[in-house]
Amino acid sequence: MNRTDTEKTPVTLLGLGAMGTALARSWLAAGHPLTVWNRTPSRARALAAEGARTVESAAAAVAANTLVVVCLLDDASVEDTLTGTDLTGKDLVNLTTGTPSQARARAAWAAERGARYLAGGIMAVPPMIGVPGAGGFVLHSGARDLFDQCRDTLAVPAGAVHVGENPGHAALHDVALLSAMYGMFAGAAHAFALIRREDIDPTAFAPLLADWLTAMAGAVHGTAEQLRDGDYTKGVTSTLAMQVAGTPTFLGTAEEQGVSPELLAPFFALMRRRLDEGGGEEDLTGVIDLLVSRPE
Amino acid sequence: MNRTDTEKTPVTLLGLGAMGTALARSWLAAGHPLTVWNRTPSRARALAAEGARTVESAAAAVAANTLVVVCLLDDASVEDTLTGTDLTGKDLVNLTTGTPSQARARAAWAAERGARYLAGGIMAVPPMIGVPGAGGFVLHSGARDLFDQCRDTLAVPAGAVHVGENPGHAALHDVALLSAMYGMFAGAAHAFALIRREDIDPTAFAPLLADWLTAMAGAVHGTAEQLRDGDYTKGVTSTLAMQVAGTPTFLGTAEEQGVSPELLAPFFALMRRRLDEGGGEEDLTGVIDLLVSRPE
Repeated sequence: MNRTDTEKTPVTLLGLGAMGTALARSWLAAGHPLTVWNRTPSRARALAAEGARTVESAAAAVAANTLVVVCLLDDASVEDTLTGTDLTGKDLVNLTTGTPSQARARAAWAAERGARYLAGGIMAVPPMIGVPGAGGFVLHSGARDLFDQCRDTLAVPAGAVHVGENPGHAALHDVALLSAMYGMFAGAAHAFALIRREDIDPTAFAPLLADWLTAMAGAVHGTAEQLRDGDYTKGVTSTLAMQVAGTPTFLGTAEEQGVSPELLAPFFALMRRRLDEGGGEEDLTGVIDLLVSRPE
Repeated sequence: MNRTDTEKTPVTLLGLGAMGTALARSWLAAGHPLTVWNRTPSRARALAAEGARTVESAAAAVAANTLVVVCLLDDASVEDTLTGTDLTGKDLVNLTTGTPSQARARAAWAAERGARYLAGGIMAVPPMIGVPGAGGFVLHSGARDLFDQCRDTLAVPAGAVHVGENPGHAALHDVALLSAMYGMFAGAAHAFALIRREDIDPTAFAPLLADWLTAMAGAVHGTAEQLRDGDYTKGVTSTLAMQVAGTPTFLGTAEEQGVSPELLAPFFALMRRRLDEGGGEEDLTGVIDLLVSRPE
Protein backbone atom coordinates (compact mmCIF):
# COMPACT_ATOMS: atom_id res chain seq x y z
CA MET A 1 0.00 0.00 0.00
CA ASN A 2 2.96 2.34 -0.49
CA ARG A 3 1.34 4.41 -3.18
CA THR A 4 1.57 7.97 -4.27
CA ASP A 5 -1.39 10.25 -3.78
CA THR A 6 -2.51 9.78 -7.35
CA GLU A 7 -2.61 5.98 -7.15
CA LYS A 8 -5.81 4.91 -5.45
CA THR A 9 -5.96 1.56 -3.60
CA PRO A 10 -7.56 -1.13 -5.78
CA VAL A 11 -10.65 -2.68 -4.23
CA THR A 12 -12.43 -5.99 -4.73
CA LEU A 13 -16.14 -5.91 -3.90
CA LEU A 14 -18.27 -9.03 -3.53
CA GLY A 15 -22.01 -8.49 -3.54
CA LEU A 16 -23.89 -6.04 -5.75
CA GLY A 17 -27.28 -5.61 -4.18
CA ALA A 18 -28.63 -2.06 -3.92
CA MET A 19 -26.05 -1.23 -1.27
CA GLY A 20 -23.13 -3.02 -2.96
CA THR A 21 -23.89 -1.26 -6.22
CA ALA A 22 -23.93 2.12 -4.46
CA LEU A 23 -20.59 1.32 -2.80
CA ALA A 24 -19.13 0.26 -6.15
CA ARG A 25 -20.18 3.49 -7.84
CA SER A 26 -18.68 5.60 -5.07
CA TRP A 27 -15.27 3.88 -5.41
CA LEU A 28 -15.36 4.14 -9.19
CA ALA A 29 -16.28 7.83 -8.95
CA ALA A 30 -13.34 8.37 -6.58
CA GLY A 31 -10.94 6.72 -9.07
CA HIS A 32 -10.27 3.43 -7.27
CA PRO A 33 -9.58 0.45 -9.56
CA LEU A 34 -12.48 -1.87 -8.74
CA THR A 35 -13.02 -5.56 -9.31
CA VAL A 36 -16.58 -6.74 -8.71
CA TRP A 37 -18.34 -10.06 -8.46
CA ASN A 38 -21.98 -10.92 -7.87
CA ARG A 39 -23.80 -14.22 -7.83
CA THR A 40 -26.19 -12.83 -10.46
CA PRO A 41 -23.88 -11.52 -13.22
CA SER A 42 -26.27 -8.94 -14.71
CA ARG A 43 -25.57 -6.43 -11.96
CA ALA A 44 -21.81 -6.74 -12.52
CA ARG A 45 -22.23 -6.13 -16.25
CA ALA A 46 -23.94 -2.80 -15.57
CA LEU A 47 -20.96 -1.73 -13.46
CA ALA A 48 -18.49 -2.96 -16.10
CA ALA A 49 -19.89 -0.31 -18.42
CA GLU A 50 -18.99 2.23 -15.70
CA GLY A 51 -15.39 1.06 -15.44
CA ALA A 52 -15.41 -1.89 -13.05
CA ARG A 53 -13.48 -5.04 -13.84
CA THR A 54 -15.67 -8.12 -13.73
CA VAL A 55 -14.45 -11.67 -13.12
CA GLU A 56 -16.01 -15.10 -13.41
CA SER A 57 -15.82 -16.23 -9.80
CA ALA A 58 -15.56 -15.06 -6.22
CA ALA A 59 -12.15 -16.76 -6.07
CA ALA A 60 -10.88 -14.70 -9.00
CA ALA A 61 -12.25 -11.53 -7.45
CA VAL A 62 -10.52 -12.25 -4.13
CA ALA A 63 -7.27 -13.07 -5.97
CA ALA A 64 -7.35 -9.75 -7.84
CA ASN A 65 -6.63 -7.37 -4.92
CA THR A 66 -5.38 -7.28 -1.34
CA LEU A 67 -8.35 -5.27 -0.08
CA VAL A 68 -11.50 -7.37 -0.31
CA VAL A 69 -14.84 -5.88 0.74
CA VAL A 70 -17.93 -8.06 1.07
CA CYS A 71 -21.47 -6.72 1.24
CA LEU A 72 -23.85 -9.65 1.06
CA LEU A 73 -27.31 -10.62 2.27
CA ASP A 74 -26.32 -12.24 5.54
CA ASP A 75 -23.54 -14.08 7.37
CA ALA A 76 -24.39 -17.41 5.74
CA SER A 77 -23.93 -15.81 2.31
CA VAL A 78 -20.48 -14.60 3.39
CA GLU A 79 -19.40 -18.12 4.31
CA ASP A 80 -20.87 -19.56 1.10
CA THR A 81 -19.20 -16.93 -1.06
CA LEU A 82 -15.75 -16.98 0.53
CA THR A 83 -15.44 -20.74 0.92
CA GLY A 84 -13.13 -21.88 -1.85
CA THR A 85 -11.35 -18.53 -2.15
CA ASP A 86 -7.79 -18.02 -0.93
CA LEU A 87 -7.86 -15.45 1.84
CA THR A 88 -4.17 -15.74 2.73
CA GLY A 89 -2.67 -12.27 3.10
CA LYS A 90 -5.92 -10.54 2.30
CA ASP A 91 -7.43 -7.56 4.12
CA LEU A 92 -11.05 -8.61 4.45
CA VAL A 93 -13.65 -5.96 5.28
CA ASN A 94 -17.06 -7.45 5.93
CA LEU A 95 -19.91 -4.93 5.61
CA THR A 96 -22.64 -7.56 5.78
CA THR A 97 -25.23 -6.92 8.49
CA GLY A 98 -25.30 -9.52 11.26
CA THR A 99 -25.29 -10.02 15.00
CA PRO A 100 -22.20 -9.30 17.13
CA SER A 101 -21.65 -13.01 17.76
CA GLN A 102 -21.74 -13.72 14.03
CA ALA A 103 -19.19 -10.95 13.52
CA ARG A 104 -16.87 -12.33 16.20
CA ALA A 105 -17.12 -15.86 14.80
CA ARG A 106 -16.49 -14.61 11.26
CA ALA A 107 -13.41 -12.68 12.47
CA ALA A 108 -11.97 -15.87 13.97
CA TRP A 109 -12.84 -17.76 10.78
CA ALA A 110 -11.00 -15.16 8.67
CA ALA A 111 -7.96 -15.21 10.96
CA GLU A 112 -7.72 -19.00 10.61
CA ARG A 113 -7.58 -18.48 6.85
CA GLY A 114 -4.73 -15.99 7.05
CA ALA A 115 -6.67 -12.77 6.49
CA ARG A 116 -6.62 -9.57 8.44
CA TYR A 117 -10.20 -8.62 9.24
CA LEU A 118 -12.42 -5.63 9.85
CA ALA A 119 -16.11 -5.96 10.63
CA GLY A 120 -18.29 -3.14 9.41
CA GLY A 121 -21.79 -1.78 9.59
CA ILE A 122 -23.16 0.67 7.03
CA MET A 123 -25.29 3.37 8.64
CA ALA A 124 -26.93 4.64 5.48
CA VAL A 125 -29.47 3.74 2.85
CA PRO A 126 -28.10 3.37 -0.68
CA PRO A 127 -29.11 6.90 -1.84
CA MET A 128 -26.89 8.34 0.94
CA ILE A 129 -23.77 6.54 -0.36
CA GLY A 130 -21.26 8.75 -2.14
CA VAL A 131 -23.20 11.89 -1.23
CA PRO A 132 -21.14 14.14 1.07
CA GLY A 133 -23.24 15.63 3.84
CA ALA A 134 -26.03 13.06 3.46
CA GLY A 135 -25.52 12.04 7.09
CA GLY A 136 -24.47 8.42 6.67
CA PHE A 137 -21.36 6.74 8.03
CA VAL A 138 -19.74 3.31 8.13
CA LEU A 139 -18.78 1.71 11.44
CA HIS A 140 -15.73 -0.54 11.65
CA SER A 141 -14.32 -2.68 14.42
CA GLY A 142 -11.22 -4.86 14.62
CA ALA A 143 -7.50 -4.15 14.36
CA ARG A 144 -6.88 -0.43 14.61
CA ASP A 145 -3.72 -0.54 12.48
CA LEU A 146 -5.56 -2.21 9.60
CA PHE A 147 -8.31 0.38 9.86
CA ASP A 148 -5.80 3.23 9.82
CA GLN A 149 -4.09 1.75 6.74
CA CYS A 150 -7.37 1.37 4.79
CA ARG A 151 -9.16 4.37 6.22
CA ASP A 152 -8.99 6.66 3.18
CA THR A 153 -10.41 3.95 0.94
CA LEU A 154 -13.06 2.84 3.43
CA ALA A 155 -14.12 6.45 3.97
CA VAL A 156 -15.02 6.98 0.29
CA PRO A 157 -18.64 5.71 0.38
CA ALA A 158 -19.84 7.57 3.47
CA GLY A 159 -17.03 8.23 5.93
CA ALA A 160 -15.49 5.64 8.26
CA VAL A 161 -15.60 5.44 12.06
CA HIS A 162 -13.61 2.95 14.19
CA VAL A 163 -15.59 1.82 17.25
CA GLY A 164 -13.15 -0.59 18.90
CA GLU A 165 -10.88 -3.57 18.54
CA ASN A 166 -13.60 -6.08 19.44
CA PRO A 167 -14.79 -7.38 16.05
CA GLY A 168 -18.35 -7.68 17.36
CA HIS A 169 -18.64 -4.01 18.24
CA ALA A 170 -19.34 -2.64 14.76
CA ALA A 171 -22.30 -5.03 14.47
CA LEU A 172 -23.43 -4.14 17.98
CA HIS A 173 -23.30 -0.43 17.18
CA ASP A 174 -25.03 -1.10 13.85
CA VAL A 175 -27.88 -3.03 15.45
CA ALA A 176 -28.17 -0.58 18.33
CA LEU A 177 -28.44 2.42 15.99
CA LEU A 178 -30.94 0.69 13.71
CA SER A 179 -32.97 -0.43 16.72
CA ALA A 180 -33.11 3.16 17.93
CA MET A 181 -34.23 4.20 14.45
CA TYR A 182 -37.09 1.68 14.53
CA GLY A 183 -38.15 3.14 17.86
CA MET A 184 -38.17 6.59 16.27
CA PHE A 185 -40.09 5.28 13.27
CA ALA A 186 -42.62 3.63 15.62
CA GLY A 187 -43.07 6.96 17.38
CA ALA A 188 -43.48 8.74 14.04
CA ALA A 189 -46.01 6.12 12.91
CA HIS A 190 -48.05 6.77 16.06
CA ALA A 191 -47.82 10.53 15.43
CA PHE A 192 -49.01 10.24 11.82
CA ALA A 193 -51.80 7.91 12.98
CA LEU A 194 -52.99 10.58 15.46
CA ILE A 195 -53.53 13.15 12.68
CA ARG A 196 -54.85 10.61 10.13
CA ARG A 197 -58.57 11.36 10.60
CA GLU A 198 -58.15 15.14 10.80
CA ASP A 199 -57.97 17.77 8.11
CA ILE A 200 -54.19 18.11 8.53
CA ASP A 201 -51.84 17.80 5.56
CA PRO A 202 -49.19 15.24 6.55
CA THR A 203 -46.60 17.09 4.45
CA ALA A 204 -47.22 20.23 6.55
CA PHE A 205 -46.93 18.17 9.75
CA ALA A 206 -43.72 16.38 8.69
CA PRO A 207 -41.37 19.40 8.90
CA LEU A 208 -42.50 20.04 12.49
CA LEU A 209 -41.98 16.37 13.28
CA ALA A 210 -38.52 16.28 11.70
CA ASP A 211 -37.47 19.48 13.50
CA TRP A 212 -38.77 18.24 16.83
CA LEU A 213 -37.15 14.80 16.57
CA THR A 214 -33.89 16.46 15.53
CA ALA A 215 -34.04 18.86 18.49
CA MET A 216 -34.81 16.02 20.91
CA ALA A 217 -32.20 13.59 19.51
CA GLY A 218 -29.62 15.59 21.46
CA ALA A 219 -31.15 14.31 24.70
CA VAL A 220 -29.11 11.12 24.26
CA HIS A 221 -25.98 13.02 25.35
CA GLY A 222 -27.50 13.63 28.78
CA THR A 223 -28.62 10.00 28.98
CA ALA A 224 -25.08 8.86 28.18
CA GLU A 225 -23.57 11.05 30.91
CA GLN A 226 -26.09 9.73 33.41
CA LEU A 227 -25.21 6.14 32.48
CA ARG A 228 -21.48 6.83 32.65
CA ASP A 229 -21.74 8.54 36.03
CA GLY A 230 -24.39 6.19 37.45
CA ASP A 231 -26.43 9.27 38.43
CA TYR A 232 -29.83 9.32 36.75
CA THR A 233 -30.87 12.59 38.37
CA LYS A 234 -28.03 14.60 36.82
CA GLY A 235 -29.29 17.53 34.74
CA VAL A 236 -32.94 16.40 34.83
CA THR A 237 -35.32 18.97 33.35
CA SER A 238 -38.49 16.90 33.55
CA THR A 239 -38.58 14.20 36.23
CA LEU A 240 -39.89 10.70 35.65
CA ALA A 241 -42.75 11.49 38.08
CA MET A 242 -43.77 14.51 35.98
CA GLN A 243 -43.52 12.52 32.76
CA VAL A 244 -45.59 9.63 34.10
CA ALA A 245 -48.20 12.20 35.19
CA GLY A 246 -48.40 13.31 31.55
CA THR A 247 -49.02 9.86 30.05
CA PRO A 248 -52.84 9.94 30.47
CA THR A 249 -52.91 12.91 28.05
CA PHE A 250 -51.06 10.84 25.43
CA LEU A 251 -53.16 7.73 25.92
CA GLY A 252 -56.38 9.77 26.11
CA THR A 253 -55.56 11.56 22.87
CA ALA A 254 -54.85 8.25 21.15
CA GLU A 255 -58.25 7.00 22.29
CA GLU A 256 -59.97 10.19 21.07
CA GLN A 257 -58.32 9.81 17.68
CA GLY A 258 -59.09 6.08 17.38
CA VAL A 259 -55.42 5.13 17.51
CA SER A 260 -54.15 1.96 19.16
CA PRO A 261 -51.68 2.74 21.98
CA GLU A 262 -49.70 -0.45 21.32
CA LEU A 263 -46.52 1.31 20.17
CA LEU A 264 -46.33 3.67 23.16
CA ALA A 265 -47.75 1.54 25.94
CA PRO A 266 -44.66 -0.64 26.61
CA PHE A 267 -42.42 2.39 27.23
CA PHE A 268 -45.02 4.05 29.43
CA ALA A 269 -45.38 0.78 31.39
CA LEU A 270 -41.62 0.71 32.05
CA MET A 271 -41.69 4.38 33.11
CA ARG A 272 -44.47 3.54 35.58
CA ARG A 273 -42.55 0.52 36.89
CA ARG A 274 -39.43 2.59 37.49
CA LEU A 275 -41.53 5.24 39.24
CA ASP A 276 -43.09 2.58 41.47
CA GLU A 277 -39.58 1.37 42.32
CA GLY A 278 -38.64 4.83 43.59
CA GLY A 279 -37.17 6.54 40.51
CA GLY A 280 -39.55 9.51 40.49
CA GLU A 281 -36.81 12.16 40.73
CA GLU A 282 -34.75 10.56 37.96
CA ASP A 283 -34.70 11.19 34.23
CA LEU A 284 -36.00 8.39 31.95
CA THR A 285 -32.61 6.66 32.09
CA GLY A 286 -33.61 4.13 34.75
CA VAL A 287 -35.85 2.44 32.18
CA ILE A 288 -32.67 1.20 30.47
CA ASP A 289 -31.74 -0.84 33.51
CA LEU A 290 -35.17 -2.49 33.48
CA LEU A 291 -34.46 -3.78 29.95
CA VAL A 292 -31.16 -5.48 30.74
CA SER A 293 -31.11 -8.79 32.58
CA ARG A 294 -28.31 -9.26 35.08
CA PRO A 295 -25.27 -11.10 33.71
CA GLU A 296 -25.31 -14.74 34.81
CA MET B 1 -52.39 47.04 20.03
CA ASN B 2 -51.53 50.08 17.92
CA ARG B 3 -48.10 50.56 19.40
CA THR B 4 -44.85 51.91 18.13
CA ASP B 5 -41.92 49.54 17.69
CA THR B 6 -40.44 50.59 20.98
CA GLU B 7 -43.59 49.85 22.98
CA LYS B 8 -43.80 46.13 23.64
CA THR B 9 -47.18 44.51 24.23
CA PRO B 10 -47.87 44.03 27.96
CA VAL B 11 -48.44 40.39 28.94
CA THR B 12 -50.19 38.76 31.85
CA LEU B 13 -48.90 35.29 32.69
CA LEU B 14 -50.69 32.89 35.02
CA GLY B 15 -48.68 29.90 36.19
CA LEU B 16 -45.02 29.96 37.20
CA GLY B 17 -43.85 26.39 37.18
CA ALA B 18 -40.51 25.66 35.52
CA MET B 19 -41.97 26.40 32.11
CA GLY B 20 -43.97 29.45 33.15
CA THR B 21 -40.92 30.92 34.87
CA ALA B 22 -38.85 30.40 31.71
CA LEU B 23 -41.57 32.08 29.61
CA ALA B 24 -41.71 35.00 32.05
CA ARG B 25 -37.95 35.55 31.90
CA SER B 26 -37.97 35.53 28.09
CA TRP B 27 -40.67 38.25 27.95
CA LEU B 28 -38.91 40.33 30.58
CA ALA B 29 -35.62 39.99 28.71
CA ALA B 30 -37.36 41.14 25.51
CA GLY B 31 -38.71 44.24 27.27
CA HIS B 32 -42.39 43.30 27.58
CA PRO B 33 -44.21 44.72 30.61
CA LEU B 34 -45.19 41.55 32.49
CA THR B 35 -47.76 40.90 35.18
CA VAL B 36 -47.47 37.49 36.83
CA TRP B 37 -49.53 35.44 39.22
CA ASN B 38 -48.93 32.00 40.71
CA ARG B 39 -50.90 30.02 43.26
CA THR B 40 -47.73 29.73 45.35
CA PRO B 41 -46.52 33.37 45.69
CA SER B 42 -42.82 32.63 46.27
CA ARG B 43 -42.17 32.03 42.59
CA ALA B 44 -43.78 35.35 41.68
CA ARG B 45 -41.61 37.19 44.21
CA ALA B 46 -38.44 35.91 42.53
CA LEU B 47 -39.65 37.33 39.22
CA ALA B 48 -40.64 40.63 40.82
CA ALA B 49 -36.96 41.16 41.57
CA GLU B 50 -36.36 40.75 37.83
CA GLY B 51 -38.94 43.38 36.85
CA ALA B 52 -42.28 41.58 36.78
CA ARG B 53 -45.34 43.16 38.36
CA THR B 54 -46.98 40.86 40.89
CA VAL B 55 -50.62 40.99 41.93
CA GLU B 56 -52.65 39.38 44.70
CA SER B 57 -55.09 37.34 42.63
CA ALA B 58 -55.66 35.72 39.27
CA ALA B 59 -58.55 38.16 38.76
CA ALA B 60 -56.24 41.15 39.22
CA ALA B 61 -53.69 39.62 36.85
CA VAL B 62 -56.33 39.06 34.16
CA ALA B 63 -57.62 42.61 34.67
CA ALA B 64 -54.14 44.08 34.20
CA ASN B 65 -53.66 43.39 30.46
CA THR B 66 -55.55 42.42 27.32
CA LEU B 67 -53.16 39.58 26.44
CA VAL B 68 -53.45 36.82 29.05
CA VAL B 69 -51.26 33.73 28.79
CA VAL B 70 -51.89 30.71 30.99
CA CYS B 71 -49.37 27.92 31.54
CA LEU B 72 -50.71 25.64 34.25
CA LEU B 73 -50.51 22.01 35.29
CA ASP B 74 -53.55 20.73 33.42
CA ASP B 75 -56.93 21.72 32.02
CA ALA B 76 -58.67 21.44 35.41
CA SER B 77 -56.18 23.99 36.83
CA VAL B 78 -57.06 26.36 33.99
CA GLU B 79 -60.75 26.22 34.86
CA ASP B 80 -60.04 26.59 38.60
CA THR B 81 -57.75 29.57 38.04
CA LEU B 82 -59.85 31.49 35.53
CA THR B 83 -63.20 30.97 37.22
CA GLY B 84 -64.01 34.24 38.95
CA THR B 85 -61.91 36.35 36.60
CA ASP B 86 -63.48 38.66 34.00
CA LEU B 87 -62.46 37.43 30.57
CA THR B 88 -64.60 39.89 28.61
CA GLY B 89 -62.55 41.40 25.80
CA LYS B 90 -59.43 39.44 26.72
CA ASP B 91 -57.09 37.65 24.32
CA LEU B 92 -56.56 34.37 26.11
CA VAL B 93 -53.63 32.15 25.06
CA ASN B 94 -53.67 28.78 26.79
CA LEU B 95 -50.30 27.01 26.72
CA THR B 96 -51.37 24.29 29.17
CA THR B 97 -50.86 20.75 27.87
CA GLY B 98 -54.05 18.77 27.32
CA THR B 99 -55.94 16.61 24.89
CA PRO B 100 -57.51 18.04 21.71
CA SER B 101 -61.02 17.60 23.11
CA GLN B 102 -60.07 19.51 26.27
CA ALA B 103 -58.66 22.27 24.06
CA ARG B 104 -61.84 22.47 21.97
CA ALA B 105 -64.06 22.54 25.06
CA ARG B 106 -61.89 25.21 26.68
CA ALA B 107 -62.08 27.34 23.50
CA ALA B 108 -65.90 27.20 23.63
CA TRP B 109 -65.80 28.00 27.35
CA ALA B 110 -63.61 31.06 26.70
CA ALA B 111 -65.85 32.25 23.85
CA GLU B 112 -68.89 32.06 26.13
CA ARG B 113 -67.03 34.36 28.53
CA GLY B 114 -66.29 36.95 25.86
CA ALA B 115 -62.61 36.18 25.23
CA ARG B 116 -60.79 35.57 21.97
CA TYR B 117 -58.84 32.34 22.31
CA LEU B 118 -55.70 30.62 21.06
CA ALA B 119 -54.73 27.13 22.14
CA GLY B 120 -51.02 26.45 22.32
CA GLY B 121 -48.52 23.69 22.82
CA ILE B 122 -44.94 24.37 23.87
CA MET B 123 -42.48 22.12 22.02
CA ALA B 124 -39.50 22.73 24.26
CA VAL B 125 -38.13 22.01 27.69
CA PRO B 126 -37.60 25.05 29.92
CA PRO B 127 -33.83 25.39 29.18
CA MET B 128 -34.70 25.86 25.49
CA ILE B 129 -36.94 28.87 26.18
CA GLY B 130 -35.48 32.24 25.24
CA VAL B 131 -32.47 30.60 23.60
CA PRO B 132 -32.41 31.31 19.84
CA GLY B 133 -31.42 28.26 17.84
CA ALA B 134 -32.21 25.82 20.66
CA GLY B 135 -34.71 24.06 18.39
CA GLY B 136 -37.92 24.63 20.31
CA PHE B 137 -41.13 26.17 19.02
CA VAL B 138 -44.65 26.92 20.22
CA LEU B 139 -47.67 25.63 18.31
CA HIS B 140 -50.88 27.66 18.22
CA SER B 141 -54.31 26.96 16.83
CA GLY B 142 -57.46 29.06 16.70
CA ALA B 143 -58.35 32.34 15.02
CA ARG B 144 -55.69 33.24 12.51
CA ASP B 145 -56.26 37.01 12.86
CA LEU B 146 -55.69 36.86 16.60
CA PHE B 147 -52.51 34.84 16.06
CA ASP B 148 -51.23 37.34 13.49
CA GLN B 149 -51.95 40.23 15.87
CA CYS B 150 -50.09 38.62 18.82
CA ARG B 151 -47.47 36.79 16.81
CA ASP B 152 -44.46 38.97 17.67
CA THR B 153 -45.18 38.66 21.37
CA LEU B 154 -45.98 34.94 21.24
CA ALA B 155 -42.80 34.30 19.26
CA VAL B 156 -40.52 35.70 21.98
CA PRO B 157 -40.07 32.53 24.09
CA ALA B 158 -39.28 30.08 21.26
CA GLY B 159 -40.90 31.10 17.98
CA ALA B 160 -44.59 30.66 17.13
CA VAL B 161 -46.22 28.42 14.52
CA HIS B 162 -49.93 28.48 13.59
CA VAL B 163 -51.24 25.01 12.77
CA GLY B 164 -54.88 25.71 11.93
CA GLU B 165 -58.13 27.33 12.98
CA ASN B 166 -59.40 24.23 14.81
CA PRO B 167 -58.61 24.97 18.48
CA GLY B 168 -57.87 21.28 19.08
CA HIS B 169 -55.11 21.10 16.52
CA ALA B 170 -52.33 22.68 18.55
CA ALA B 171 -52.93 20.08 21.28
CA LEU B 172 -53.11 17.32 18.68
CA HIS B 173 -49.81 18.42 17.14
CA ASP B 174 -48.31 18.76 20.62
CA VAL B 175 -49.35 15.27 21.67
CA ALA B 176 -48.34 13.77 18.31
CA LEU B 177 -44.86 15.29 18.44
CA LEU B 178 -44.33 14.28 22.07
CA SER B 179 -45.59 10.77 21.31
CA ALA B 180 -43.07 10.50 18.47
CA MET B 181 -40.38 11.69 20.88
CA TYR B 182 -41.27 8.94 23.36
CA GLY B 183 -40.95 6.43 20.54
CA MET B 184 -37.49 7.80 19.78
CA PHE B 185 -36.57 7.72 23.46
CA ALA B 186 -37.79 4.11 23.67
CA GLY B 187 -35.57 3.25 20.70
CA ALA B 188 -32.63 5.05 22.30
CA ALA B 189 -33.25 3.22 25.61
CA HIS B 190 -33.12 -0.11 23.75
CA ALA B 191 -29.90 0.98 22.02
CA PHE B 192 -28.21 1.99 25.29
CA ALA B 193 -29.39 -1.28 26.84
CA LEU B 194 -27.70 -3.24 24.03
CA ILE B 195 -24.28 -1.76 24.84
CA ARG B 196 -24.78 -1.80 28.62
CA ARG B 197 -22.81 -4.97 29.34
CA GLU B 198 -19.97 -4.18 26.92
CA ASP B 199 -16.83 -2.14 27.34
CA ILE B 200 -18.29 0.75 25.35
CA ASP B 201 -18.37 4.29 26.76
CA PRO B 202 -21.96 5.52 26.41
CA THR B 203 -20.69 9.07 25.88
CA ALA B 204 -18.71 7.86 22.83
CA PHE B 205 -21.78 6.01 21.54
CA ALA B 206 -24.16 8.96 22.04
CA PRO B 207 -22.76 11.20 19.26
CA LEU B 208 -23.19 8.37 16.74
CA LEU B 209 -26.72 7.81 18.02
CA ALA B 210 -27.61 11.51 17.84
CA ASP B 211 -26.14 11.82 14.32
CA TRP B 212 -27.96 8.72 13.11
CA LEU B 213 -31.33 9.69 14.57
CA THR B 214 -30.93 13.18 13.10
CA ALA B 215 -30.08 11.75 9.67
CA MET B 216 -33.03 9.35 9.79
CA ALA B 217 -35.55 11.90 11.13
CA GLY B 218 -35.78 13.23 7.57
CA ALA B 219 -37.47 9.98 6.52
CA VAL B 220 -40.75 11.41 7.82
CA HIS B 221 -40.95 13.64 4.73
CA GLY B 222 -41.18 10.56 2.49
CA THR B 223 -43.77 9.02 4.82
CA ALA B 224 -45.86 12.20 4.63
CA GLU B 225 -45.78 12.22 0.82
CA GLN B 226 -46.79 8.56 0.75
CA LEU B 227 -49.73 9.28 3.08
CA ARG B 228 -50.79 12.34 1.08
CA ASP B 229 -50.63 10.48 -2.23
CA GLY B 230 -51.99 7.18 -0.90
CA ASP B 231 -49.03 5.42 -2.53
CA TYR B 232 -46.89 3.59 0.02
CA THR B 233 -44.43 2.31 -2.57
CA LYS B 234 -43.37 5.81 -3.68
CA GLY B 235 -39.62 6.35 -3.32
CA VAL B 236 -39.04 3.17 -1.30
CA THR B 237 -35.36 2.43 -0.71
CA SER B 238 -35.81 -0.58 1.56
CA THR B 239 -39.04 -2.53 1.16
CA LEU B 240 -41.12 -3.81 4.06
CA ALA B 241 -40.24 -7.36 2.98
CA MET B 242 -36.50 -6.58 3.23
CA GLN B 243 -36.96 -4.88 6.58
CA VAL B 244 -38.99 -7.74 8.05
CA ALA B 245 -36.24 -10.10 6.85
CA GLY B 246 -33.80 -8.07 8.97
CA THR B 247 -35.75 -8.24 12.22
CA PRO B 248 -34.26 -11.58 13.40
CA THR B 249 -30.85 -9.85 13.53
CA PHE B 250 -32.27 -7.19 15.85
CA LEU B 251 -34.12 -9.63 18.07
CA GLY B 252 -31.18 -12.06 18.07
CA THR B 253 -28.78 -9.33 19.10
CA ALA B 254 -31.10 -8.28 21.92
CA GLU B 255 -31.15 -11.87 23.15
CA GLU B 256 -27.33 -12.12 22.93
CA GLN B 257 -26.98 -8.93 24.97
CA GLY B 258 -29.57 -9.95 27.57
CA VAL B 259 -31.96 -7.17 26.55
CA SER B 260 -35.73 -7.53 26.60
CA PRO B 261 -37.25 -6.95 23.15
CA GLU B 262 -40.43 -5.45 24.62
CA LEU B 263 -39.88 -1.95 23.21
CA LEU B 264 -39.20 -3.12 19.63
CA ALA B 265 -41.47 -6.15 19.37
CA PRO B 266 -44.80 -4.31 18.87
CA PHE B 267 -43.50 -2.40 15.83
CA PHE B 268 -41.94 -5.50 14.33
CA ALA B 269 -45.22 -7.36 14.88
CA LEU B 270 -47.13 -4.67 12.94
CA MET B 271 -44.52 -4.79 10.15
CA ARG B 272 -45.02 -8.55 9.94
CA ARG B 273 -48.81 -8.15 9.90
CA ARG B 274 -48.68 -5.64 7.05
CA LEU B 275 -46.32 -7.94 5.14
CA ASP B 276 -48.72 -10.85 5.62
CA GLU B 277 -51.52 -8.64 4.28
CA GLY B 278 -49.58 -8.08 1.06
CA GLY B 279 -47.58 -4.90 1.74
CA GLY B 280 -44.15 -6.39 1.04
CA GLU B 281 -43.23 -3.91 -1.68
CA GLU B 282 -44.30 -0.92 0.41
CA ASP B 283 -42.33 1.31 2.74
CA LEU B 284 -43.16 1.10 6.49
CA THR B 285 -46.05 3.53 6.01
CA GLY B 286 -48.75 0.84 5.88
CA VAL B 287 -48.18 0.22 9.58
CA ILE B 288 -49.83 3.59 10.26
CA ASP B 289 -53.11 2.35 8.81
CA LEU B 290 -53.01 -0.67 11.12
CA LEU B 291 -52.96 1.67 14.12
CA VAL B 292 -56.05 3.67 13.19
CA SER B 293 -59.50 2.21 13.68
CA ARG B 294 -62.06 3.04 11.02
CA PRO B 295 -64.29 6.01 11.83
CA GLU B 296 -67.67 4.85 13.13
